[in-house]
Amino acid sequence: MIFEEETISSERIYEGKILNLRRDRVRVHNGQESYREIVEHNGGVAIAAVTPEGKMVLVRQYRKAAGKALLEVPAGKIEKDESSHLEVAIRELKEETGYTAGQMTLITHFYASVGYSMEIIYLYLALHLSPGETSFDEHELIEIEEYEIKDLKKMIKTGAICDSKTIAAILLTEQELNGE
Amino acid sequence: MIFEEETISSERIYEGKILNLRRDRVRVHNGQESYREIVEHNGGVAIAAVTPEGKMVLVRQYRKAAGKALLEVPAGKIEKDESSHLEVAIRELKEETGYTAGQMTLITHFYASVGYSMEIIYLYLALHLSPGETSFDEHELIEIEEYEIKDLKKMIKTGAICDSKTIAAILLTEQELNGE
Repeated sequence: MIFEEETISSERIYEGKILNLRRDRVRVHNGQESYREIVEHNGGVAIAAVTPEGKMVLVRQYRKAAGKALLEVPAGKIEKDESSHLEVAIRELKEETGYTAGQMTLITHFYASVGYSMEIIYLYLALHLSPGETSFDEHELIEIEEYEIKDLKKMIKTGAICDSKTIAAILLTEQELNGE
Repeated sequence: MIFEEETISSERIYEGKILNLRRDRVRVHNGQESYREIVEHNGGVAIAAVTPEGKMVLVRQYRKAAGKALLEVPAGKIEKDESSHLEVAIRELKEETGYTAGQMTLITHFYASVGYSMEIIYLYLALHLSPGETSFDEHELIEIEEYEIKDLKKMIKTGAICDSKTIAAILLTEQELNGE
């Protein structure tokens, strides 16, 4: 009985650097009309990277939308011409942390905020890490921090970690490492 | 060494129903200028509701941004005049599932997509549920489904569940119920 909302018309509101915004007029299940505000976003990758010592590699960076720095898993946007999510994940891990992974596996994918955004995040588990040089953009400023998963789980509860993809990454990585 | 990006100017692009969009010109850490596209969103609540039988209560609804129906925890937007997140959580659980909780506890909060959105989600654990009538908006069409957590964990891996707040809710609820 799942109803698909038919688009009656679509208004382009903004074409930007990391997102576009449109407003769709739709017909809902009872025949009435309504509006849907949709953020168009090309999606991204996030990397749960675990060192040989069993620590997860996180990055701390300032986020304008939050008005503060957040501790997150390494992540990056998929550009329009990029078809290989795995290649983006390999590149972002290297750029932000310097690490190269001997093994990179897709854990799962998810919508970040499906009420209004098309953004899908592909989450990779990176193992057998070799250290190297970072190469992030001169506009970026990133600190690398490594934590044990048991400590990260406490930091989710205290709010020291408050980013949805990072929470998913930590808890799914624990499952993966436990063979679940 | 965390650098705060100074806002040089801010352009209002769109004022909408569930979100606004602005574009900030900022000064980044190396003194250069850049732009930040920011979705203003008032935040929301999500509810991890567990029945006396130990099943989680999820809702399936069509999502225009995804172009399909998704299985998610009950959730709702915080309106501008609402100061009590707990009241919103109680209302949304009742409206979408009919359930009233004997106990409602804040587990944690997180940004849904902090790269561009101000949206914060407050995640509540709802226990001691009593069934009742749903009362969702005539524009909405919602199916209620109940699952054991061990099955939900498999559904995260297969992609049958692909919503970030729902993944966080399932895995954090398992921790809470295990006394972690």
